Parts: sequence; C-alpha cells; structure tokens
Amino acid sequence: MPSSSQHKATVTAPSNIAFIKYWGARNLKRAVPVNRSISMTLRTCVSRCTAAWLPDRGKHVIELRNARGVLAPAPPAFAERIRSHLNFLRRWAGVGGHFHIATENSFPAAAGIASSASGFAALTLAVVTALDRRLSLEELSSLARLSGSGSAARSVAGGFVEWPVGFSDDACHARVLAPAKHWPLANVIAVVSSGPKGTSSLDGHRRARTSPYFRTRQRRLPARLEAVREAIAGRDFEQLGTVIEAEAVDLHCIAMTSVPPIFYWQPATLVVLETVRALRAEGVPAYATMDAGPNVHVICLPRVEKLIAERLAALPQVETVIRDRIGDGPAIETRHLF
Amino acid sequence: MPSSSQHKATVTAPSNIAFIKYWGARNLKRAVPVNRSISMTLRTCVSRCTAAWLPDRGKHVIELRNARGVLAPAPPAFAERIRSHLNFLRRWAGVGGHFHIATENSFPAAAGIASSASGFAALTLAVVTALDRRLSLEELSSLARLSGSGSAARSVAGGFVEWPVGFSDDACHARVLAPAKHWPLANVIAVVSSGPKGTSSLDGHRRARTSPYFRTRQRRLPARLEAVREAIAGRDFEQLGTVIEAEAVDLHCIAMTSVPPIFYWQPATLVVLETVRALRAEGVPAYATMDAGPNVHVICLPRVEKLIAERLAALPQVETVIRDRIGDGPAIETRHLF
Repeated sequence: MPSSSQHKATVTAPSNIAFIKYWGARNLKRAVPVNRSISMTLRTCVSRCTAAWLPDRGKHVIELRNARGVLAPAPPAFAERIRSHLNFLRRWAGVGGHFHIATENSFPAAAGIASSASGFAALTLAVVTALDRRLSLEELSSLARLSGSGSAARSVAGGFVEWPVGFSDDACHARVLAPAKHWPLANVIAVVSSGPKGTSSLDGHRRARTSPYFRTRQRRLPARLEAVREAIAGRDFEQLGTVIEAEAVDLHCIAMTSVPPIFYWQPATLVVLETVRALRAEGVPAYATMDAGPNVHVICLPRVEKLIAERLAALPQVETVIRDRIGDGPAIETRHLF
Repeated sequence: MPSSSQHKATVTAPSNIAFIKYWGARNLKRAVPVNRSISMTLRTCVSRCTAAWLPDRGKHVIELRNARGVLAPAPPAFAERIRSHLNFLRRWAGVGGHFHIATENSFPAAAGIASSASGFAALTLAVVTALDRRLSLEELSSLARLSGSGSAARSVAGGFVEWPVGFSDDACHARVLAPAKHWPLANVIAVVSSGPKGTSSLDGHRRARTSPYFRTRQRRLPARLEAVREAIAGRDFEQLGTVIEAEAVDLHCIAMTSVPPIFYWQPATLVVLETVRALRAEGVPAYATMDAGPNVHVICLPRVEKLIAERLAALPQVETVIRDRIGDGPAIETRHLF
C-alpha cells in the first residue's frame, strides 16, 4: 500500500438526463432495473468529489458544500447513503481504514436537479482513484450502480449512454451508444421548484408495478428504445424528440396511476410543457422530458438554445433556467476540495 | 294530428358528471360506447329547451340564448348538429313539417361545462313531448344518445345513472342505479377555463384506441364499475371518491398517451387537484373528477360543500365556482322560451 498522503483523488462526474427512463427495479437495493434506459450525459451539471483514504480505523468523514458555499457535515440521510456505499467500496477493495469525502455540485443546491446520479458516480470514481485502482467503464458503472442510485450507472461515461446492456447482476452496467461529439445537443432546464419532492424516486420505483399500465409499458419499451437508438445514430431530431416527450409523459402516467398515485407535476410544469408545444408550433425544434420531479428539461439543437432559454426564463413560473450541453463524462481533477 | 298550436313543449334536462367515463366508441356516429359509464345527474346545471312542431314544410329555426341574454340564431356548427338530430327525430316520428327550437343553459355560456349532454337530452325530450309521444326512459335515452352526444343518454334520468346496460345498438340506453334522494351528494365545480377546448371530445373518442393503455383500461373497467355501484349502494364516500379520482386521472392518462397526445389539463387544473388533496389531508372528504377538459368537479358531502366552494373560489387560478347537487332529472316546464 502506498502512504496515505497519496491516497487522495478529486474527480468530477456529470448528471445525465434520461431519454428512456429507469422506472421500476428487479432488485431495488442493488438497482437492477426492470427495463433498459438511455440517457444523455450533461456537461455543466456536475458533482465534484474529493476522496481520501486513511489507513487507520475511524468513522468516515462526509462533507458537502452547503448553500452558503461552506464545506459542512452532510445532512444525516444523505451521509447515511454515502457511508453505506463507502463501506461497500471498502469491502470490494479489500481494505480497512476509513474515508474522508467532500462533495460539491456545480448546480444550485436543491435546484431539483437529480444530484444522486452525478454524486454517486463522482464518489465511486474518486474512491477507486484514491485507492489507485484502474477500472473498465463496465466495472465502474456497476460499482456506481451499487450505490443504489441506478442512474449513477449512466453518469460514468459521456455522450449517449445505454444502461443496462445485460440484465444479470454482473452484466448490469452502461455502455456508450455514441460519444458527445457525434451530436452536440443542448438541454435547457426549466427549474420550476427547488423544494424536495413529496415522493422519493425510490418509493416511485417501488410503486411502479402497482400501475395497471406498468406491464404494457414494459412490453412497448423495446420498440421505443430502438427508436431512440436509431434517432441518435441518424441524428434525427424530430424522431428523437417525439419519442422522448411521449416517454416522459408515459413515466408520469405510470406514477399518477400507481396505488396510491404519485403526482410529480406542478402547475408550472404544465406551463413549461405548453410553452414547448407553442415553440414547436412556431417552428422551433424543442422537445420536453422530465425525470421523477416537476422540472422540465428541454432538449434542443444548439442553434435554438439561447432563444429557448430566454422564452423559459420569461415565464413567471420558472425559478431558474440552466443551459447545459451534452458532455464527455467524468474527469480527474487536480484541485482538491480539502 | 292535433293542431300545430298544441305542438309545443318546454323541458329542462340536466347536465351530468361521469364517475366512470365514456371514452372510446364502438360506433362514434351512433354513440355506442366501448365501455359502460356511471354518472351523477346534476340539479342546477340544466338546459331549457322549447320545441315547436310546425306541420308545413320549412327550414328548422334554431335559436340559442347568447351571452347577452338574447335568443339569437345558434352558431353554425352547433345548429348543424341540432338540425341533424331534428331530421333524425322527424324520420323516427314519421312526420313531415319542421321545428322551431330555442335553448338556454342555466350555467354561464362557455363555462367549460359540457352542455351537449343536457342540451341534447332537453332537445330530444322537448321534441317528443311537442309531438305528444310518451316514451319509456329506455326509449328516450336511446333517442337522446343518437344525437351523437353519448352522455346525453345519461341526462334523461335523475340520481345515479349507468349507461349502457347492453351493448347492442337497441339496448344502448341508460338505467337508474339509485334515485337522487338515496344519497344527496354535492358537486362543486371549479371553472378554470371558459375557452373552447383545443381538442373536441369526438376527436378524443376517435384517438382513444391509439393509447397503448386503452385495452388495459377496458379490461380493468368492470371491477371499477362494480366498485362504484357498491359504493353508491352502500353510501361509502371514501370508496366512491378514491375510485372516481383515479378514474379521472386514468381518462387523462389515456388522452395524454394517445397519438398524437391530447392535453386537457391546464396549470390551474393541477392547482385545484392539489387543493383537493390538501383538503383531504385536513380531513375534509372531497374527491376530484374531470371530464375531457380542464375544469375540476369536486364531489363532496353537502356538509362540506360551502367550505370547499370558499376554498376553491379563493384560488386566483379559478375563474368561477358553481355549486351543484345531485338532481332528479328532466322536467316538463310550463313557461315557454317563445
């Protein structure tokens, strides 16, 4: 083992926006999904994580940069999820000791952007780098996934990512469909609510099967996945957009018809969706997608990104607009957080 | 034939709110539905119609009381639907001549309350009464249905109404599940948009089958219908409410997953739905249902009707609140409109 002073690494890992959603798990704890998903990796919305491995026994130290810009102990529920993953990674690596972790997000705290995908991808990569392990994309994806945040499995790579490629527990990792430079799409995020969600994604996954429409959705997903792969391969924006907007509505219909129902949409969500349809009616190519929350991601070509951002920012119901692009995936950083 | 001076009748017929929705037709022109529906007849939201039969040849005269309170020629599209039904009723009755029709609604014009159910029920009853025919409920329901407005088949009776009882064209009429006095429920209507709908109900019926979830919905409806019948029979408000709110969301999920999708909800619709959930969380028994439009009907017990109406009226997104109750069905009137 090298000395502890070298056992420190800082990485960034991006958030991603799913074109085909992960909704429903075969094994929720191990984040083995019922269906494949496809996402676009983001560039600007990233988590930065410094991990240090300390060989002596001790409790993990877990810090998060807070709204005032200060590194402070992470909130208990969040720290517990990280602690659990650190223990898993320690067993996986076959080491003792403990970790000192510090994390920050490039996007506003509690902006309603899912930070678990980028956060757990960054944590996983920072820890394995601090431990000086070299992993394949497949191994890294599987390890990130085992944090319990399934979408973290997609955040270890750039461009267009499909996850999983196989359904066995071992083969449940992501692969790159196409790199970012293949098709430089933009994502204008309309943040309509920065508050916490009423129902967590984990509860949503649990309840997904209670929707009468869940099985029908599963049966139809292979064709939808193929339509997205085709659209990406052929850079067919209209085909991509039509499918992903329908897919997002589908996810929310499954949630709203679960027992008991889950309503992630807020009034402002519908305002943004109406605006996107109005933009299309004006000839602006833009399609909406939403994760399990009220915010709307407007996927567009870079040439109309500014126009769309301005239109969305002008809506009184929109709190913040974040302009993002397709990104290249995680990176090793030289500046540490501590 | 009696003399023409006697061939005049005025009736009122109520609107109704569906607990289980008619969505998708076996025969759209003849309004033969794919599935059974159950509704509550309203008391206050009614159409009043005077029909006069004139034995000489001539064009039908069709008048509608407009927003300024004046009887004026009906708008062309509306007049055309009425003319077509009058021609059908004339053939059915085996008479010649022509009709003079005048109609008014008790609810604000274009309040977004479906006026075709009450309007065509009133028209049908007024015409058969003017022609001095005595019809059974079944016959009247079938005749009203053949106007093309399927929900008119439910507006010929009071209380809780199921339609159809049979699926053959002959047996496609309504029956009373329980009279109004069995369970005096209230309906507080939050009108959030009085504008015309972007997609007509007829187009919605046509597109229903394009939803991947349409068949699953049909398979599940018998259990849902039975749950509503049971709840009505046993006056179980929580069971009734839970089922009808889920059913309304279901209708809109079918519409939103149709190809192309139909969005009837407006941002204000979600504001009202949130308010209804908040009322329930406070212990106020209230459940929401929506037809193919943005307005929300809040079904409740009369003891909380005033409270709910005040809460909804206080929402800036709500244009008007209409308080209605379960009603006894159509009535013959003595005061004519002309």
